Amino acid sequence: MQLTRHTDYALRLLIHLACNGNQRTPVAVIARDQQLSRTHLLKIANDLSNAGLLDAQRGRGGGVCLARPPEEIVLGEVIRITEPHCELVDCSGCRLRRDCTLPGVLDQAMAAFMAVFTRHTLADAIRPGRIMAPARAA
Amino acid sequence: MQLTRHTDYALRLLIHLACNGNQRTPVAVIARDQQLSRTHLLKIANDLSNAGLLDAQRGRGGGVCLARPPEEIVLGEVIRITEPHCELVDCSGCRLRRDCTLPGVLDQAMAAFMAVFTRHTLADAIRPGRIMAPARAA
Repeated sequence: MQLTRHTDYALRLLIHLACNGNQRTPVAVIARDQQLSRTHLLKIANDLSNAGLLDAQRGRGGGVCLARPPEEIVLGEVIRITEPHCELVDCSGCRLRRDCTLPGVLDQAMAAFMAVFTRHTLADAIRPGRIMAPARAA
Repeated sequence: MQLTRHTDYALRLLIHLACNGNQRTPVAVIARDQQLSRTHLLKIANDLSNAGLLDAQRGRGGGVCLARPPEEIVLGEVIRITEPHCELVDCSGCRLRRDCTLPGVLDQAMAAFMAVFTRHTLADAIRPGRIMAPARAA
């Protein structure tokens, strides 16, 4: 079981910003520094921006920064954006559906999993002393 | 996030046996009935047999059946067999490792997730009245 690359990259993007004084940074620069696919990271930055977690500006001097302090970015919120279809198994076409109650157990397991992320913020994912206050949106 | 196909197939194999009176059945027959890859299911049956969850016999009249009643097959045990390397993200090569404490949060989330499966047995994954007692091993 793994989180999608979408979630992995989103978390790296957010941690990168928090650990670099939340300076407004072009996504291409973060992709280069973190050795991630630029195309993929641009799509993720767009999703996080639409969800209000990033403040994105286009053009010269543009880039992304956190829209809120790391203490106010709940990890559960991030994962719900990046893993909207969190089905642990695909039951479509399964021939056991009439007899099987596994989806109820899977739902409980996912709820327990997500509850941990809902109790933690971006600040909890960063070593103490490595976070700087977010830059004020221009 | 999804469980691996390995886990998905393992659960279907076990549920199939429990819902069919736990008759000793060739893996090829289960693969056909459940429309799963025979090669993949054989490998899984082998893993579950080695772990003591299935009783496997070769040759004419051979096949697999549950080695214990469904009430004694803990789902957490199954998942630990089929997902031995349960790393939610691959941190190798990540350039944020010095600053990042996310693995601690991920470990907590995985523990909460697994705890649910450890509280449930195969019997909990099957609609009441659809289970029969396991066949006695020959």
